[in-house]
Amino acid sequence: MSAPHHYADRLHAAVRSKGTPALVGIDPRLKSLPAPVLDAATGPTELERFADAFERFGKGLIDAVADLVPAVKPQSAFFEELGPPGVAALSRVIAHARAAGLIVILDAKRGDIGSTAEAYARGLLGGVDPPRPDMADALTVNPFLGPDTLEPFVNVARERGAGLYVLCKTSNPLSGKYQDAELDGVSTTNRIAAHLDLICANSIGETGYGFVGAVVGATYPAELTDLRNAMPCVPLLVPGYGSQGGSAADVAGAFDEKCGERGGLGALINSSRAVNFAFSAEPFAAEFGPARWQEASAAAARAMVEDLRAIVR
Amino acid sequence: MSAPHHYADRLHAAVRSKGTPALVGIDPRLKSLPAPVLDAATGPTELERFADAFERFGKGLIDAVADLVPAVKPQSAFFEELGPPGVAALSRVIAHARAAGLIVILDAKRGDIGSTAEAYARGLLGGVDPPRPDMADALTVNPFLGPDTLEPFVNVARERGAGLYVLCKTSNPLSGKYQDAELDGVSTTNRIAAHLDLICANSIGETGYGFVGAVVGATYPAELTDLRNAMPCVPLLVPGYGSQGGSAADVAGAFDEKCGERGGLGALINSSRAVNFAFSAEPFAAEFGPARWQEASAAAARAMVEDLRAIVR
Repeated sequence: MSAPHHYADRLHAAVRSKGTPALVGIDPRLKSLPAPVLDAATGPTELERFADAFERFGKGLIDAVADLVPAVKPQSAFFEELGPPGVAALSRVIAHARAAGLIVILDAKRGDIGSTAEAYARGLLGGVDPPRPDMADALTVNPFLGPDTLEPFVNVARERGAGLYVLCKTSNPLSGKYQDAELDGVSTTNRIAAHLDLICANSIGETGYGFVGAVVGATYPAELTDLRNAMPCVPLLVPGYGSQGGSAADVAGAFDEKCGERGGLGALINSSRAVNFAFSAEPFAAEFGPARWQEASAAAARAMVEDLRAIVR
Repeated sequence: MSAPHHYADRLHAAVRSKGTPALVGIDPRLKSLPAPVLDAATGPTELERFADAFERFGKGLIDAVADLVPAVKPQSAFFEELGPPGVAALSRVIAHARAAGLIVILDAKRGDIGSTAEAYARGLLGGVDPPRPDMADALTVNPFLGPDTLEPFVNVARERGAGLYVLCKTSNPLSGKYQDAELDGVSTTNRIAAHLDLICANSIGETGYGFVGAVVGATYPAELTDLRNAMPCVPLLVPGYGSQGGSAADVAGAFDEKCGERGGLGALINSSRAVNFAFSAEPFAAEFGPARWQEASAAAARAMVEDLRAIVR
């Protein structure tokens, strides 16, 4: 059996094919779903009906953007909010995205020690051996417990040809309170970046990047530029663009000369709310509205792709 | 409708009733399950059969220790490893523990920002409104994204009469790499402790503790003592006793004069592997073996309770 294809190479083939580093989050927030999706949903219990709505919304969103973007990022929390039926819906949404040829990054921000971390990695990257064919391509990971706790995630991802995105500098207002703290003069954010760069330097694929990425928020553009330079072969996942306030100019720093010139390799820029719920916010609400929510999402994704063209050649 | 009963008061009623601060983890590791449990399991697919084994094991373990300890801590990672059937099994294990009168602490170490954090909190503390009656009593939380990201968890827990245990100093060898880093001369661990103490000072129940606890590992006994003193009204969850190497003497620092004298309030000492798989390790393997695994687990739980009697009066 040949080794599984390198995550960064699979990702970058998709980025080149679509010509954009735009990533669309799948965030089924119950109170924000379009009425037609809720109306069409069925199920023997209220939770199962909600889960059916989440599945319809997730699949519909995938269908709306599959031709436009290389990757999607389902947010596990919203599915987990519904309990077991929600988790089952998430699994079917992931399978749908994979079948549509999209790279799937499961945003679950897991972290734990030793064999517990290994259980999360196996479970969320395809389940017990052998992994399910509909496994997610990559998983977000919280490194707070320590660099030793990343190892099981890295080992499982390597073995499965999957990717990871490790929280490095998050997009929220008080992210610095713990992430900026220093040990021996090096901040936790920079220490994580150095650790990830070391892992990636030993696992570079054909497109020049390793399979262990970093999450760096668009809401801290100066740090984003510094971190891009500090870990040149680490793929980035950049949240905070769009609804959280980050602009194309703010995320430009995620693309250094190397990755910007190659059409936007090495970083994915995520937008969730602005694409998911475009039907209910201007400028798309007036034209489309709830009945045409998929068209609104496609229009918002197209607008994002256009917006990002200014920064990747 | 009256306010939900305060988490720490419910917990401490259970601790007093059982006369011990011993907490038993529920860690169904596939490769370690007793053969009779695996043999009895059924299901249309292999994953569903494994999930049935996890449910049988979890419920059997609960039955074995329910008269001996006040609380159990299911580890979400092992159930999630099996995908949706595993998550469904976890939900039934939680319900079984609640029905047995145990306090249930769901160890899921979630963390995210804003409304995403709120979705995790709602989902894992009973689901969307109204919460399921079989909700977990408390949830472990990863604070790495920042103190602002704890707020949604605290708000949901307060509203539901639930508890939280926030990672403060974890038990693994390299926990200090990020947790010991300092900002303005204060380590991240100490900053988290101060934040939790402030929240608890404003939410003290009848037994003298707040509902937002801290996870502090038994493997760092000196820090455990310091942290107990730094956050006197914060309930502690102490992993690392037993299989990870912590002894009763190592966890003595979790009980200050206040909580030690009151029979062991204010801290729970967790043991997972040594109780779960007592049938396959000495000193209980020779006497019981796989066929009598529940008796082995009960014997191991009794031994733990006895061991801890030396440090709580």
